[in-house]
Amino acid sequence: MLKSFLPLERLTAEAFAPFGDIIQTTGNTFHHINACMVERYHDLAPVDVLDGDGRPGISLLVAKPYELPLAVQQLERHPRSSQAFIPLSEQPFLVIVAPPGDTVGIDSLRAFVTDGRQGVNYRRGVWHHVLLAIGEMANFVAIDRIGNGPNCDLFDFAPEIQCWIDIEPSQIK
Amino acid sequence: MLKSFLPLERLTAEAFAPFGDIIQTTGNTFHHINACMVERYHDLAPVDVLDGDGRPGISLLVAKPYELPLAVQQLERHPRSSQAFIPLSEQPFLVIVAPPGDTVGIDSLRAFVTDGRQGVNYRRGVWHHVLLAIGEMANFVAIDRIGNGPNCDLFDFAPEIQCWIDIEPSQIK
Repeated sequence: MLKSFLPLERLTAEAFAPFGDIIQTTGNTFHHINACMVERYHDLAPVDVLDGDGRPGISLLVAKPYELPLAVQQLERHPRSSQAFIPLSEQPFLVIVAPPGDTVGIDSLRAFVTDGRQGVNYRRGVWHHVLLAIGEMANFVAIDRIGNGPNCDLFDFAPEIQCWIDIEPSQIK
Repeated sequence: MLKSFLPLERLTAEAFAPFGDIIQTTGNTFHHINACMVERYHDLAPVDVLDGDGRPGISLLVAKPYELPLAVQQLERHPRSSQAFIPLSEQPFLVIVAPPGDTVGIDSLRAFVTDGRQGVNYRRGVWHHVLLAIGEMANFVAIDRIGNGPNCDLFDFAPEIQCWIDIEPSQIK
């Protein structure tokens, strides 16, 4: 039995680049619209959902928080689409990812904590943990593919691999 | 000179049905996902953005509040797409709309105030005021069409028509 803890990283565009995009104003440019009443941070993440009969959908998610520490036992990927989550409650959540591929190497896992405002857009095929709210109930908007056909592969870690995730309170804010 | 005040209505799915959809959990059903950790309010508003070379885009908007009372002088419509706005700050905003058509009759104007959590999706061709934050700075996610070609028609009310909007504090919460 190998029990290890994943290091938890702050979510930055550079660190997350292999996996997708961060939906945030920080570090991005805007242009003014509506007679300068609004700053528009334009087209922050590719919505890649049209494969097959796919179309984009807007859904709301109400997420229960996970207890920490948490064992990472399963990841999923969407072979036909991207998937975006944007928080509607200003609270951090956890983002656990691994690069696209037929399998997931435990050494390729990365774990991030958001700053409370950041959303993420997982690129098609990127392995990721299901939505990981922490602390309290949290609401999200999801922008993903509505369509027929299988679009979710699961990867289960072998039982002897125990990769845990925890968070230091100082990392949340 | 005709100066009148628009009645301000609470935003409900029924009242807004001629213009689009409300993106909200209230009154909608969900199904559980992620081993019952998440309630998914699925596919709440049609994203109609593929006309021409259109594709869906996710943008963030940082909106200055308007001073009230406000004269409604101009509306816009998007002939090629829907447009969704979901608030990231829990504050009400105003939604002023008129039915699709070649022109806007002042008598067809409707004005709504959101409950602070509701988002809206304007149906293609629906006349609407630009984003109307009130009170304080407010952040929104916008899901709309990225693509070439003209996609914004403007309608200017004649100068002698002055249709005003105001809000009673009791209507905000």
